[in-house]
Amino acid sequence: MKSIRVIQYGLGPIGCSVARALLEKKGIDLVGAVDIAPDKSGKDLSEVLGLPSRVDIRVSDDAARLFRATKAQVLVHTTRSFFRDVYPQLEQAVKAGLNVISSTEELLYPQLRSGQLASKLDRLARQHGVTVLGTGVNPGFVMDTLPLVMSGVCQKVGSVKITRRVDASTRRMSLQRKIGAGMKPAEFRKLVRAGKLGHIGLLESMALLAAGLGWTLDKISERIQPVLADTVQKTRYFTVAAGDVCGLKHTGVGYLDGRKVIELDLRMYVGAKDPVDSIEIRGVPNLRVSIEGGVHGDLATVASLVNGIPRVLEAEPGLKTMLDLPIPRAYQVL
Amino acid sequence: MKSIRVIQYGLGPIGCSVARALLEKKGIDLVGAVDIAPDKSGKDLSEVLGLPSRVDIRVSDDAARLFRATKAQVLVHTTRSFFRDVYPQLEQAVKAGLNVISSTEELLYPQLRSGQLASKLDRLARQHGVTVLGTGVNPGFVMDTLPLVMSGVCQKVGSVKITRRVDASTRRMSLQRKIGAGMKPAEFRKLVRAGKLGHIGLLESMALLAAGLGWTLDKISERIQPVLADTVQKTRYFTVAAGDVCGLKHTGVGYLDGRKVIELDLRMYVGAKDPVDSIEIRGVPNLRVSIEGGVHGDLATVASLVNGIPRVLEAEPGLKTMLDLPIPRAYQVL
Repeated sequence: MKSIRVIQYGLGPIGCSVARALLEKKGIDLVGAVDIAPDKSGKDLSEVLGLPSRVDIRVSDDAARLFRATKAQVLVHTTRSFFRDVYPQLEQAVKAGLNVISSTEELLYPQLRSGQLASKLDRLARQHGVTVLGTGVNPGFVMDTLPLVMSGVCQKVGSVKITRRVDASTRRMSLQRKIGAGMKPAEFRKLVRAGKLGHIGLLESMALLAAGLGWTLDKISERIQPVLADTVQKTRYFTVAAGDVCGLKHTGVGYLDGRKVIELDLRMYVGAKDPVDSIEIRGVPNLRVSIEGGVHGDLATVASLVNGIPRVLEAEPGLKTMLDLPIPRAYQVL
Repeated sequence: MKSIRVIQYGLGPIGCSVARALLEKKGIDLVGAVDIAPDKSGKDLSEVLGLPSRVDIRVSDDAARLFRATKAQVLVHTTRSFFRDVYPQLEQAVKAGLNVISSTEELLYPQLRSGQLASKLDRLARQHGVTVLGTGVNPGFVMDTLPLVMSGVCQKVGSVKITRRVDASTRRMSLQRKIGAGMKPAEFRKLVRAGKLGHIGLLESMALLAAGLGWTLDKISERIQPVLADTVQKTRYFTVAAGDVCGLKHTGVGYLDGRKVIELDLRMYVGAKDPVDSIEIRGVPNLRVSIEGGVHGDLATVASLVNGIPRVLEAEPGLKTMLDLPIPRAYQVL
């Protein structure tokens, strides 16, 4: 079998981990990398990744040019969180004939906030015979795909409740910052009001779940609250004083005919005890699933992107969601 | 949206539960039923199901005739466990232009034991533009599809261990008999040696898992042992004396390069304490998933068949496995 030729777009912490995984992966040839950061572009990818020897892939800051010059089949895209922000990047890739798998949180279900733009991307992808998919671990797995898969053994689903409790001290610095760790409560609340703080993708998870279960929700509520440190919390990167913010609690509730049918409860904070992912379906039969310690966000996001490569390559053209593609699974070529 | 027209083939305990579910289900029209048992054929389906009022579906003992006379899109097939035994039924359905979703355990991965027959059925299904799928809860979900889905968030999978512990006293009588409950140990062992006792589908689960993970196993071992009752066990249907068989332990191990990579451990017995399904993946990251109480076999098998109806209808023609189709999920039309 011929190797799949892949380009990596975005060399932040997740993108670098993806690039490392792609370089190691049998069955995949990493043939290009894009990042516009001046301290990355122009360098050999090995320098950016901190690898001991050259890989002879020069990081490009000009995606269009790289796409023209390099024969590839799939783009792994890990740049930004909002669909509107990344749309030009996705359009460029699609027009270059690249299948795209992306960690952009809103791309999990872009129809939710940007129906027209999603339709436009879908048309373009079909025209160019390529597939575009947003995925990851959250959104992308724990709070949407996995509970949907579980519902496959239910005759009826009355309601779904998903809890994800993450000890942020085990995660990368940028994530610890993103959840407000180290802030004063007033600052946290101000940023939440400005729409600048919170987990991105919670409502996309809810939309995917609802679509998969055939529900047209009549109301959705969402709340972002700070979690305050009881005692001093030290991470590898900084210290949170007692009383300051150590992370967030982000919840969402979806209603059908006035009844709570989806509850999503995400808690990410430094020092969280007993991290876990749990899924509770009330239906026929009832199901209670738990993942001990929870799925590790960074490792698993990288995995879901890499494992998705053959699936976007094989899928029908268009803008797809996790509902459309065959079951996720580890991609391993011996 | 137009309702999907469905025929039910086989009115044993599972088939009857499917038929009841189909009669209730919005989006589905049950338009026919087949069973050759003299005490069922010719009757109105409501009588066989024990429903209070007629449903005006006469149970037929002549599948070919029913398929000709009745316009339908999907056949739900719940007759027997072995692929070779049901092949003529499947061929008949496919030639009549019916998509098929079946609980036949060996149909989960028919390539394992009957490669030529599987290829023949695949060709026929393509010729007639229909899809054939084997599914269920075990095999079909707990020991194959679900662990594969979990592997989708792993960068590497070193090994997979799945345990399913079922308290058979909560299950139907035919299942209690199938696992040897009430037998003397010598009788149990004799039936095992004759290939007449054991869970059907364990090696199909292993084959599907291995195929999904890209592994070509070099050795497989399988063992069926009796579980003996410590104390008297009473079920709704019969009593097991202390020292007699209360059920079975059926295990399978798959090796890759001499290393155990798949371990399946199924214990089904009357009086099993702490029933649970658990999946342990050793990889990057490690994952430990558990389903409290385990997925209820009978309820969930019915669910997986009914939920699979729209998916076999929409899939590309051919003989498919759970690896080929979009993620399972509850089928609900409001």
